[in-house]
Amino acid sequence: MDTTVGPLGLTFREARREDLPRIVELIRDDAVAAARTGELAEAHSRGFEAIEASPNDELVVAERDGVVVAVMQLTYIPGISRNGATRLHIEAVRVAAELRGGGIGRRLMEHAEERGQARGCGLAQLTSDAARADAHRFYEGLGYAASHVGFKKPLAHGPG
Amino acid sequence: MDTTVGPLGLTFREARREDLPRIVELIRDDAVAAARTGELAEAHSRGFEAIEASPNDELVVAERDGVVVAVMQLTYIPGISRNGATRLHIEAVRVAAELRGGGIGRRLMEHAEERGQARGCGLAQLTSDAARADAHRFYEGLGYAASHVGFKKPLAHGPG
Repeated sequence: MDTTVGPLGLTFREARREDLPRIVELIRDDAVAAARTGELAEAHSRGFEAIEASPNDELVVAERDGVVVAVMQLTYIPGISRNGATRLHIEAVRVAAELRGGGIGRRLMEHAEERGQARGCGLAQLTSDAARADAHRFYEGLGYAASHVGFKKPLAHGPG
Repeated sequence: MDTTVGPLGLTFREARREDLPRIVELIRDDAVAAARTGELAEAHSRGFEAIEASPNDELVVAERDGVVVAVMQLTYIPGISRNGATRLHIEAVRVAAELRGGGIGRRLMEHAEERGQARGCGLAQLTSDAARADAHRFYEGLGYAASHVGFKKPLAHGPG
């Protein structure tokens, strides 16, 4: 993974176990996600371990002056449709609230595309809560088309 | 994977290499996807092999009387947000055109949820092209909420 320090003083790297409290803090620090993210707990640790164990998932942090200032999760989804393209699927994009508007998010998304290209992805995709009008303008400004409707459904825990 | 023959005479199983021509045919047989799926080619074979190699991806077909009548791809995405939930991410849902409206799609989606529950998923998610009004009613009828906007962006091939 590229760890070059760019013009905003950012270093991108895969998250480490000790980053997890800060990552949960970033994901929670958001009007839409606060209630559903939960306080740091065992479930987040299990999620972190499952990401680490997966060959197709990366939890990426951006660091500046030794502080994690942004996070995102990248999943590489192989497929048959779209002419057999691998998709770069992006979840949990967050920039520290006090630093938003300074270009970190744009640089983060550029890094996502670089990672996707390195994995041969033909398409990047993400969904954004319908309540996030600012985020929608942000993604459209980066060349994303709001071409799809995103559906979600909670699943009850099964026997597995 | 459940291979019980249910009330509609369907058997669900993981796709095999020899199913690929039929799968591409199903994915292409769709006004929205035809142009972008392409004719069966090496790219689809590579996609199939990448799905087979992934521990978090399954290409599922529904078979009736020895004929593949529906397909979908399931990806299990571990995560930190949503309280550490694993997501059941669904792509490329297709039912043979001549059999639509007979309940196969509903049974296919039930099977998706069963697979997600068996993998401990707390949430199912998918996106549907904004042009697919019928599909949106279908997913809403199954309990999905159209809560998100789905963004897509083609990626140019990088050096990787």
